Amino acid sequence: MDIASLVGLIGSFAMIGGAMVVGGGLAPFFDVPSVLIVIGGTFFAAMYTTPLPTFLASFGAMSKAFLPPVKKQNVMIERMVELASIARKDGMMALEGQDVPDKFFEKGMQLLVDGADETKLVQQLNQEIKAMKLRHENNQNVVKAWVDLAPAMGMIGTLIGLVLMLGNMDDPKAIGPAMAVALLTTMYGAIVANVIFAPILTKLEGYTAYEVTYREMIVLGLKNIARGESPRNIQDQMISNLPPKMQAKMEAA
Amino acid sequence: MDIASLVGLIGSFAMIGGAMVVGGGLAPFFDVPSVLIVIGGTFFAAMYTTPLPTFLASFGAMSKAFLPPVKKQNVMIERMVELASIARKDGMMALEGQDVPDKFFEKGMQLLVDGADETKLVQQLNQEIKAMKLRHENNQNVVKAWVDLAPAMGMIGTLIGLVLMLGNMDDPKAIGPAMAVALLTTMYGAIVANVIFAPILTKLEGYTAYEVTYREMIVLGLKNIARGESPRNIQDQMISNLPPKMQAKMEAA
Amino acid sequence: MDIASLVGLIGSFAMIGGAMVVGGGLAPFFDVPSVLIVIGGTFFAAMYTTPLPTFLASFGAMSKAFLPPVKKQNVMIERMVELASIARKDGMMALEGQDVPDKFFEKGMQLLVDGADETKLVQQLNQEIKAMKLRHENNQNVVKAWVDLAPAMGMIGTLIGLVLMLGNMDDPKAIGPAMAVALLTTMYGAIVANVIFAPILTKLEGYTAYEVTYREMIVLGLKNIARGESPRNIQDQMISNLPPKMQAKMEAA
Amino acid sequence: MDIASLVGLIGSFAMIGGAMVVGGGLAPFFDVPSVLIVIGGTFFAAMYTTPLPTFLASFGAMSKAFLPPVKKQNVMIERMVELASIARKDGMMALEGQDVPDKFFEKGMQLLVDGADETKLVQQLNQEIKAMKLRHENNQNVVKAWVDLAPAMGMIGTLIGLVLMLGNMDDPKAIGPAMAVALLTTMYGAIVANVIFAPILTKLEGYTAYEVTYREMIVLGLKNIARGESPRNIQDQMISNLPPKMQAKMEAA
Amino acid sequence: MDIASLVGLIGSFAMIGGAMVVGGGLAPFFDVPSVLIVIGGTFFAAMYTTPLPTFLASFGAMSKAFLPPVKKQNVMIERMVELASIARKDGMMALEGQDVPDKFFEKGMQLLVDGADETKLVQQLNQEIKAMKLRHENNQNVVKAWVDLAPAMGMIGTLIGLVLMLGNMDDPKAIGPAMAVALLTTMYGAIVANVIFAPILTKLEGYTAYEVTYREMIVLGLKNIARGESPRNIQDQMISNLPPKMQAKMEAA
Repeated sequence: MDIASLVGLIGSFAMIGGAMVVGGGLAPFFDVPSVLIVIGGTFFAAMYTTPLPTFLASFGAMSKAFLPPVKKQNVMIERMVELASIARKDGMMALEGQDVPDKFFEKGMQLLVDGADETKLVQQLNQEIKAMKLRHENNQNVVKAWVDLAPAMGMIGTLIGLVLMLGNMDDPKAIGPAMAVALLTTMYGAIVANVIFAPILTKLEGYTAYEVTYREMIVLGLKNIARGESPRNIQDQMISNLPPKMQAKMEAA
Repeated sequence: MDIASLVGLIGSFAMIGGAMVVGGGLAPFFDVPSVLIVIGGTFFAAMYTTPLPTFLASFGAMSKAFLPPVKKQNVMIERMVELASIARKDGMMALEGQDVPDKFFEKGMQLLVDGADETKLVQQLNQEIKAMKLRHENNQNVVKAWVDLAPAMGMIGTLIGLVLMLGNMDDPKAIGPAMAVALLTTMYGAIVANVIFAPILTKLEGYTAYEVTYREMIVLGLKNIARGESPRNIQDQMISNLPPKMQAKMEAA
Repeated sequence: MDIASLVGLIGSFAMIGGAMVVGGGLAPFFDVPSVLIVIGGTFFAAMYTTPLPTFLASFGAMSKAFLPPVKKQNVMIERMVELASIARKDGMMALEGQDVPDKFFEKGMQLLVDGADETKLVQQLNQEIKAMKLRHENNQNVVKAWVDLAPAMGMIGTLIGLVLMLGNMDDPKAIGPAMAVALLTTMYGAIVANVIFAPILTKLEGYTAYEVTYREMIVLGLKNIARGESPRNIQDQMISNLPPKMQAKMEAA
Repeated sequence: MDIASLVGLIGSFAMIGGAMVVGGGLAPFFDVPSVLIVIGGTFFAAMYTTPLPTFLASFGAMSKAFLPPVKKQNVMIERMVELASIARKDGMMALEGQDVPDKFFEKGMQLLVDGADETKLVQQLNQEIKAMKLRHENNQNVVKAWVDLAPAMGMIGTLIGLVLMLGNMDDPKAIGPAMAVALLTTMYGAIVANVIFAPILTKLEGYTAYEVTYREMIVLGLKNIARGESPRNIQDQMISNLPPKMQAKMEAA
Repeated sequence: MDIASLVGLIGSFAMIGGAMVVGGGLAPFFDVPSVLIVIGGTFFAAMYTTPLPTFLASFGAMSKAFLPPVKKQNVMIERMVELASIARKDGMMALEGQDVPDKFFEKGMQLLVDGADETKLVQQLNQEIKAMKLRHENNQNVVKAWVDLAPAMGMIGTLIGLVLMLGNMDDPKAIGPAMAVALLTTMYGAIVANVIFAPILTKLEGYTAYEVTYREMIVLGLKNIARGESPRNIQDQMISNLPPKMQAKMEAA
């Protein structure tokens, strides 16, 4: 579990729930039809924004917002530098079967082993990165649909409640509670959009940006191995992507 | 029919309709002048944003949001690889009359048969893609006009209702129902924009992005056939666009 | 007159006016000071966003939203192909005085007659296109100012009305009508922005995009004449910009 | 003074003030603490968005929105063509000390006199343009802060007023006037943002765009002088930036 | 301390606090549960938008908005010109150990000493700049999350308060104060977003833009030293980035 997602999600719900409890208990804040119109309505409207496979895949993508990003840039750089040494000493063929920290790295290394030249290597790996970005964007567009549609559904629900209340004001005592219920969908819409899906969206976009940088660094490293650059030179170029402190640590090593 | 569009559209209307029924029936939510000002007003204002042929064409474009995307990338790649083998063995002329899965592919192949070189092929096909994007954008701008204008029309309708109600408050009992009717247009505007047209817009934009990728892959394939690349090489390059699982499946085949 | 602009503008006003009439006549919806603050205030604030000549020119630009786009791409392509034949047979000088469908085309053709090479031709015509885009953008920015400022003026007007009403609540019967009048400016702002100027803006942007494509096609055609390409080849390249149906029609011809 | 800015600013305030006077005099619309929280609060919050020198410089930049753009493109083109003749006849050194209409032009001409080649000339002048754009953007960001923050300050002021009013509702007669005062800050915020600063921002952005085009034309002209192009050719290229009517006038001259 | 940040922050709070005090003291504006839901809720929701290390790092980044930008462009240019003289006279090795005003400059100089050619130098330093921009963007995205989420949390808090109040309207005297408390969270959200975090965000974005320009100037200078350009020429190129007044001052020196 990614600690920030977990603590963040629980914490923000605790703050909201706490305010409810302090004010008079959770009971006044639950209403089944209101939940249905906001959650259900947004679910179906979001489904309608995209082909079904993408809609289904988006839930898997969202769950990744709760997993920590496991790929470490420094570990990958170290391994790349080792591979550069091996390739320089024993040729590209010696890279066959070497352990690498992820599949994209492995695919690129295999291209080198298969004799791909620099142009082909870069072109094919960049194509992979572009396709990955497009896939991630498709999933994130579904999350964005939740963020955009939930407040609209909340507003529609509140308008339904208001129309009903205004058309039937014989009992003045009923007005307050009816309006309270009407406002619940707006509240649900704001919570669903801002406390659940908007942070997931930002987190996934951040993860994609990180993954793109990570993969571009792999392409940079493999390109230089293909060119026969010195391991030292490759390390210098790759660590330019790291924050100053990590650079210093790696240079010291 | 695209299952996600159908289920999504019906489902979100069911949620909204269900909330109405549970609250007191559908009757209080229908009002002919309110429907006219929102649907009719938005219809005419949207017509006014664009030349008439584009406005009319936009309805056809919208209907595509309910059709599934039928073009399969893997089928097209397989066919491209077969054509590459044929072209390598028997020359470009042998491509004449070959079956291909869509018209854009056919047009590109015909250019090869007619002896177009790589530059001309790429230039002309990219021009086609650019023109297609522009055409789609024009249609999508009409959908966007519905999304933008419907809430505005709803608000104008509500203001008309409020002005009428406020100018005539002699009968206190009439105020509630009059205000209920005034709010209907805001509700219609929110539904028309968010439940009908916004998802259509997102879906059409997604379809266009898919079609552009699909066509760029065709250009990539044909360009490499023109260059005389090996079928194996062409497949390697093209499948970089597919998700990892589909790549593995195609490589195994 | 462009039929879509005319019908659209009249139709949307008919819908709004109809809702007013059905509700109780047009009279409650007119108030001279409210008109002045919204229309007059927006007029002056929009004037202030730009130098005077641009402000004055913007009205001419807006009137173009009511004229149909008269330039036909297929007619221009046919003429270009004919000119290519003439230039190939009799040299560039033979283009002198030939009829062409518009001034930009004429200017480009004259450059060819005057012996401009491909580079000079393309550079100068692209400069023209860029300058045209900038001029159009300047005009459209004034339209955008109307769209942005009218609702703000409407809100300011409503706040003025509310402040006056709230400061003087001795006569409870006067509150309703006073608030009705206060809301009028918000309604005017919404109508001016969404029913009048927003559609004009979208339409003008569409016209500019069309004109840019049209001129880029002329540059493409003339560039190829300068290169001495075959008329057939020039037609092939130019019709890639047309929708599939028109392409088929022109190829059949 | 730029006539459009002056008339526009006075005109829009006259409309707003007129509506106030017609409704009951200006007195109800002034409240010192409300002015302080909106104008003062926005002033300090805007100061906080940027380093102090930029904040101070932004007032000078804003005052330029009231000055007309004095640089005339046609005058500059004519001078450039004359200089091209001189440079062709008597060499670059003859440009020394020639009168030119502005400092940027002078700087570029001096570079030619000092023997700069085309590459150095273009690189250095483009660097100047880029730095100017950045400086202008910094100033405009302060104006944008006023536009964004004033309505927020207005809303905060209104909320303060509402909280005070709601906490003290013993005297029903005081509620109306208290709420009237509370709304004043929202009104001030809307006026400050939309009637004062938003038009200034648009105008300054337009001026910057004009200045950039103007300077790019100078770079184009000087580059061609460095290349030794004919004065006629230079004029042809430069006037492509002018509107058709001005082009015709200059060509006739 | 950056004087503008300090005065700006204190000044805008003074304006808001002043309006509160004038209206009736600060007491009605404090409510612990309201503070918790806005500050606490936004804190946790913002944490959830990003991995924990970035969330923690963002506080350090925010504190920089209160520090003045210390790097002076003119000092750096002067030093660069001196180094260019040294390098020209005594070779790159003579740059070893020279004092330079910042770490990025030092890293670039060390690359020259280590014998990096122009391409490697530029590539590696640009990589550093790109990575810095990405790191800054990550931090600024957390600030942006505060700006976006605080008003949403404020609105959720107000809705909670309204629902509680509306469900319990037996005592008419309690309605006003209950609503006053409900509005507090909206007010807190507006203050947190607009008075605290929005200006910090703008300031940090400005600092990043300044730092990028500063570093690009260093790359420009070092690149020209690597090419062996004359110190005079290097100064000419670098000062093109300065405002006209500072240019004149440096040229006079």
